[in-house]
Formats: sequence, structure tokens, C-alpha cells
Amino acid sequence: MKHDQDYMKMALELAESALGKTNPNPVVGAVIVKDGVIVGTGLHRKAGEPHAEVHAFNMAGDHAKDATLYVTLEPCSHFGKTPPCALLVKNSGVKRVVVATEDSNPQVAGRGISILREAGIEVEVGILKKEAQQLNERFIHNMIHETPFVISKVAMTLDGKIATHTGHSQWITGEAARKEVHHLRNKVDGILIGVGTVLADNPKLTTRLEGPSKNPIRIILDTNLRTPLNAHITDCTEAQTIIVTASNIDSEKAKALKGKGVDLLAVPSNNGKLDLKNALQQLYKIGITDILLEGGSEVNASFMREGLIQKYLVYIAPKIAGGVNSYTPFRGEDIEKVDEAVPLRFEKTEWIGEDIKITAYPNKNA
Amino acid sequence: MKHDQDYMKMALELAESALGKTNPNPVVGAVIVKDGVIVGTGLHRKAGEPHAEVHAFNMAGDHAKDATLYVTLEPCSHFGKTPPCALLVKNSGVKRVVVATEDSNPQVAGRGISILREAGIEVEVGILKKEAQQLNERFIHNMIHETPFVISKVAMTLDGKIATHTGHSQWITGEAARKEVHHLRNKVDGILIGVGTVLADNPKLTTRLEGPSKNPIRIILDTNLRTPLNAHITDCTEAQTIIVTASNIDSEKAKALKGKGVDLLAVPSNNGKLDLKNALQQLYKIGITDILLEGGSEVNASFMREGLIQKYLVYIAPKIAGGVNSYTPFRGEDIEKVDEAVPLRFEKTEWIGEDIKITAYPNKNA
Repeated sequence: MKHDQDYMKMALELAESALGKTNPNPVVGAVIVKDGVIVGTGLHRKAGEPHAEVHAFNMAGDHAKDATLYVTLEPCSHFGKTPPCALLVKNSGVKRVVVATEDSNPQVAGRGISILREAGIEVEVGILKKEAQQLNERFIHNMIHETPFVISKVAMTLDGKIATHTGHSQWITGEAARKEVHHLRNKVDGILIGVGTVLADNPKLTTRLEGPSKNPIRIILDTNLRTPLNAHITDCTEAQTIIVTASNIDSEKAKALKGKGVDLLAVPSNNGKLDLKNALQQLYKIGITDILLEGGSEVNASFMREGLIQKYLVYIAPKIAGGVNSYTPFRGEDIEKVDEAVPLRFEKTEWIGEDIKITAYPNKNA
Repeated sequence: MKHDQDYMKMALELAESALGKTNPNPVVGAVIVKDGVIVGTGLHRKAGEPHAEVHAFNMAGDHAKDATLYVTLEPCSHFGKTPPCALLVKNSGVKRVVVATEDSNPQVAGRGISILREAGIEVEVGILKKEAQQLNERFIHNMIHETPFVISKVAMTLDGKIATHTGHSQWITGEAARKEVHHLRNKVDGILIGVGTVLADNPKLTTRLEGPSKNPIRIILDTNLRTPLNAHITDCTEAQTIIVTASNIDSEKAKALKGKGVDLLAVPSNNGKLDLKNALQQLYKIGITDILLEGGSEVNASFMREGLIQKYLVYIAPKIAGGVNSYTPFRGEDIEKVDEAVPLRFEKTEWIGEDIKITAYPNKNA
């Protein structure tokens, strides 16, 4: 016999399959069970399309009566692009609703659950809550901070080198890890690098995968508009580019970049350092909900030191570079004591081919 | 019903419990099974004491007749400190012998198995062979190379720093990882550092554990005998110290060190660089079968580049130091291209408290 956890796990798997496709919305999965039979399933596939509950009730039809609904996120209570799901659930005839986690959206925040309880429906909250919150970590961060969820991606040798002193970095990690990075790009709204990396590597930053994929918006931090007009990222036919700058965005250089289709975003700066928080706030306002941070090491360090990285994905290759002048993933100021290091919390390790991937989060308790 | 693998697994667990106690001998476990009942168990506890088979047959007595013997290593065929086990097995009455792996000792190397087969006993070789060989990786290396098995231990931040630029390193890793290092020391014959680390940190390099433990021999690489007479490691009351040097070991400094009980080992040098291979050969001849290599980073790099490290244990703490002048685990010459990095093979990852431990081996196929 299956338990609440089993059905919620299935609902979470349904939701997970749409990760990266629903921005700015959360991913949500729903399963309706009656007398041990799954009578309805659904997930939110894309912003503007029906919510998970709608698909599940469409499938269930009359079987929804007296059934149990498992849903990974509290049903919404507000009129957005679609009517509130809480009303749909209330009128569906289900007698019990199991919710993994409340909605952090201030427009919902418990009101969806209240509507159901007031209608006499039994509501249970918290089954696989941790998993559900992790699945929507991007969305929850957005709701609370109104900035994009920033994921730092690093590919390094076991001794923490991302390139030799000559800048050579092809390839640190194996094919599987490099391919995974393209899957990451395929899921985020933006990808961010510093102009130093543009000048050094002239990358395209596009998603290269077999089959359909999306190109995230390329965001370049470039205080003094040093991005060359012939840099690959100024070619906006395949992907959009935003240059974040402190320069006069009406200058000749700015106009030339705009003429190529590049967007410019002006932010305040201090001693030549861009106000990163302000940049993130502006980027969020124009719809960028998550960003893959791909370096260089000064940019990485600035984001890290300012507490603007929400997640770390570190791919470690089974090799040791040694030496003293190789490039490292995070530079910035030297620290005097170990205690000044930025504390993380390791979440998990995975094998990616012959490499190891460590997932970590900032450790707020340290 | 239990299978061959189950009994061999038990024999391996018996053997494993004596890891670090049997040097220079291998660890060996034996289980005798008759009609599904375990009638004898044994392990080799310490060099000079009876072999695993002897204990197992003592326990089994007459029940050994027509039984099956599971033994993790081919029974020995030579007269050492104890008579050959192959003869004991041959005369025991067992009808079947299951061996995990052959003995790499050139004095055995298949002869133990031949003796049994010639006596008409059914012998099966190779059950859990990989596990058995890994358990005796130190012994197998000794037999083939006649040098100590060298284990490089590193404790670093996620971005590969072992100390800040000021030399501060207390503490990179957590308590559990630091404790594990003392368990490692408790299992090896020798612990090796460069004189640079003596001068910088003045360590004791003793094993600090609750309960009985052993102190490995402290081996200091010190080309020009720079070790101060008042360094902790010159106090030989708790642990023995060997200084490996290219200096005149009859000089005044040498005599003063010897007067404190320190042993000196002279090895050839080239441009001020000690011949590490020669040092290892000499250390093996005086009975050191394995060595924990604990830095500094130049010593680590020299051993690594010369292919003298057999195993890597890297403890990674959940923190990022950043900066450019911190100490890194392996220095040495800078490389030009990523391809010049030393290739490893990751074996496994483990959680040690909140840290992650990566076990790696040199990758000979890369």
C-alpha cells in the first residue's frame, strides 16, 4: 500500500520535470488519489499555461469527489494569469488535501490553505516539505529577496585550479561535466560573467545541446564598457545580451553596442566597483529570476563576499595542477585567518562521469 | 542461505580490523564453514603471531574435515616466522578452499595454491578479489616496489587552500576530520614532512587519541640539516625521529641531533634536491612499510611529480578562502597546459562530519 509520502514524491517528480521552464512561476506537481487509484495527475508546465491542479482535475473528472489531492505547493489564492486554484480545489469535491509546503508568494502565503480549511476540507501541510522547498529554492528566493537566484558554477582541479597561468583551461573537467553545464544554461534565465572573461576567452555562452534548448540572456559586468564590438557576445542573433555598466550609456561606444542589439543597464558604482545588489535588483525587475555565475574569479569573489550567491556547484576533476600562478575560482582580497573564509554547507556529492560534483549552500548558521 | 561472497566478506572484515597492526605482513582473515555453520574464524593480528588460518583451524578442530576454508589471501608456502599455512591447510581435511587473491610476495606468488591443488583440494581464486587487493594495497605495493606505500593527506578549503597567506590554518577542517588524521597516524609506520614545516609550525606529529595508540616514526626531509635542536620533533621520548639529509652526518650539528636520539639517514642529492626514491628505498629497508605524507606543499609536489604517492586522502572543508596568496596543497613548477596536470582516479567520497573526504589514486591509464 502506498502512503502520503509516495504520492507526494510522485507529485514532486512531476514538478521537477518542468524545472527551468516555469520561470517566473514555481514548479508544481499534483496527484489526485481515490481509493488507492491515481485518478488525476498534473504539473505546471510553463508560465501562462494552466496550473498543476487544473490538469489533475481535468483528468480526474467526477473521480475527484471524496478523493485526496497531493500538491507540492499551496494552491494559489489570487487571480493572476489564471483563476485561483484554491477555489477550484474547494469546488472539486475532494475531501482531503495534502500540501508539501506553503507558498512564499506574499499574495498567497497561507491564504490558499485557509480557503480550503474554511470550506471544511481536511488539509495537511508539511509532507516532504524540505524536498519541496529545495525544488522551488529559486522561486522562494525571488519571493523573499526580489533578486535573481544566483548559482555559482566552478570547474576545477582537485587542488582548486580553473586554468593554468597561461590561461589554458581546455579541459579541466570531463565531457559529462561539460555537458551538464549546458543543461544548467538551458534552465536559467541569465548567465553572468565579467568583462575580463570576455576579453580573455571571447566566449559565446550559448547552450549547446542536442535537441531543443534555450539560450539564457548573457549578462556582462563591464564598468567601463570595455567589451569589444566584435566580441562574440555582441552578436545577438542567437541570444540576448545585457551589459551592466557604470559608463555613460549614451556614449559613442554605448550607441555602437546598442546598434548591434546589446542592451545596456546602468548601475551605480563605487571606486570602479559596480553595485552588484542594485544590478541584481534591476535584472530581477526585467524578469531574470535566476543567473548562472560563470566567473572570472574576481567577479565570483565579489558576489561571494557580498553574500549574493545562493548556491554553489563545484565540479572537481581528478587531477592536480600544482604550481603557484594558476587561476583559482575565487580571488578577491586575501584573508588573514581561516575564520574569515566564507562558510558553506555541503549539501551533496555526485559522480559526473569521472568528476565529482559538490553542491553547497551559504551556511547562515556558521 | 549464505554464499561464498558472504563468507569472504566476513573474512575481509576480520582482516580489516587489524589494518595497521600487521606491518610488514599483510592483513588476512579466514573463515571455515561446514554444512552452513561457521566452525572456525581467524585473522592475522600482528607480525610474529599466528597466521589467520592457524587461529581458524584451532577453533574448528575436527570440524575442519570436508569443510570449506575462505581466506582473503593465498595461504603462504614459505617458512617465515611461522611454518607455511599451505601445509596446514593441506593436512586439515578441508575439501574446498576459496581464496580472494593470490599473494604478491615473490616467495609465495601462486605456490600456496599449487600445493593445495596438487593435494586434490578444490581451490577457487578471485572471490572479492578487488576488495581483498585494496585491503592489502600497502603490502602489495611493498612486495612489488620495495618502497613504503605513501599516502598524501591534505586538509583544505573548497577552493584548495591549506592556510592563509599568514600561515594561519587552525582550523581548516572540522573536529571529526582532524580526529581521523590521528587514526591515520595510528596505522602507519612513518609520517613525513619537510623541514620547512618544522620551521614554520614546529609540530609534534604524535598520535593523539583516547586509548592506546602508536606514534609513527617522524621522518623529516632536511637537505641541509636546518632542523633546530629545540624543535619538538627532536624530542624522541615519545616517538622516534629520522632526519633524511644530504649533509655530512658526522658534522657538529649532526652529532648534536644524534645526541638527542635523532637518527640521520644520508641520501644523495642533486642541486639541493634529495633523491626521494633513494630515501624511500632506504626507509623501506629499515622496516618502514607505509608513510603518511603531511606536507608542506613543495614536498607534496615533489613526491607527486616523481610518481611516489600511491594514495591521496583529501579532506575538503565547506568554506571558501579566496585571495591569491594563500597556501595551496601542491606547489612545485607551474604547468603551461591542463594536460600536464597529474592525473588521478577518484575512488570514493565520504562525509567526515561536515567535511567531505575524497580518496584518490594515481591514474595510470590517463
